[in-house]
Amino acid sequence: METTETTLPETSLFIKMAVSAWKQQNERVDKLLDKLSDEQLKGDIAPGKNSGTYLLGHLVAVNDNLLPLFGFSDKLYPELQNIFLTNPDKSGLVQPAVADLRKYWHEVNRKLVQHIDAMQPAEWFTRHSAVSAEDFAKEPHRNKLNVLLNRTTHQSYHLGQLVLLQK
Amino acid sequence: METTETTLPETSLFIKMAVSAWKQQNERVDKLLDKLSDEQLKGDIAPGKNSGTYLLGHLVAVNDNLLPLFGFSDKLYPELQNIFLTNPDKSGLVQPAVADLRKYWHEVNRKLVQHIDAMQPAEWFTRHSAVSAEDFAKEPHRNKLNVLLNRTTHQSYHLGQLVLLQK
Repeated sequence: METTETTLPETSLFIKMAVSAWKQQNERVDKLLDKLSDEQLKGDIAPGKNSGTYLLGHLVAVNDNLLPLFGFSDKLYPELQNIFLTNPDKSGLVQPAVADLRKYWHEVNRKLVQHIDAMQPAEWFTRHSAVSAEDFAKEPHRNKLNVLLNRTTHQSYHLGQLVLLQK
Repeated sequence: METTETTLPETSLFIKMAVSAWKQQNERVDKLLDKLSDEQLKGDIAPGKNSGTYLLGHLVAVNDNLLPLFGFSDKLYPELQNIFLTNPDKSGLVQPAVADLRKYWHEVNRKLVQHIDAMQPAEWFTRHSAVSAEDFAKEPHRNKLNVLLNRTTHQSYHLGQLVLLQK
């Protein structure tokens, strides 16, 4: 019985921790975007490396993919997949305008946060749409919360690069 | 009763997910270090930005700090604090040789992994040494597991920068 009492708050605690960490990364990107001009964003993070616009489009596309992966909705901007996920930067594909990318970033996250804030704790431990029920039975850590943890570190990785665009 | 059965595996699952994510970041740094020559590591990640050696020393110092923060032991290399945490790069302070930094990185992580692998699930939800018992009562998310989550995203941030040293 004691176990129940100590475990229940733990479950909601670590969901709070994981969701807070993910939101914090989004907020850090928000703050950086407010500081960077469009011209700065168009620059490369280092000579010969990815541009800021490519990385921003990449982060939007990755977050947009969470909508179907978590079973919330279709993607808002499916056209970003080819430009920012399937292909590398400088592939010659036409990118959306910087102003649009900024708008997409906020739109995708607003929609994601709405859905995420409405989730029940148990839902976080269900499988995401890219893992089969059969595989999930053998690998129960491949749940939605694990995807969120991975996306948090992925976003932090690229945030560490985007900050280099600052003067 | 049903709650007990579903919550207990969730707790151990989440700890497994968080520890795996942290170890995965360490392994990614390991792999990158194997690829980078000492000369490459001495270079700056972008013109006028931090050097690879500074970032490596910074990551070692941060991980070394986890030993006392989690109550495992004293730091192995307390002298790194001043060079890589208190002061910025290019501060004029003498840095350890690159070969030593590589060795420290592996030593600190080996010791940390030993302790972490021996932790009981409930220990992860106890406070770390930098939060008072009083504050912890009000903010129970300030536990050891939360520190590990934060360190994972912090390390990923700098890994995103260190990869720029690759040709």
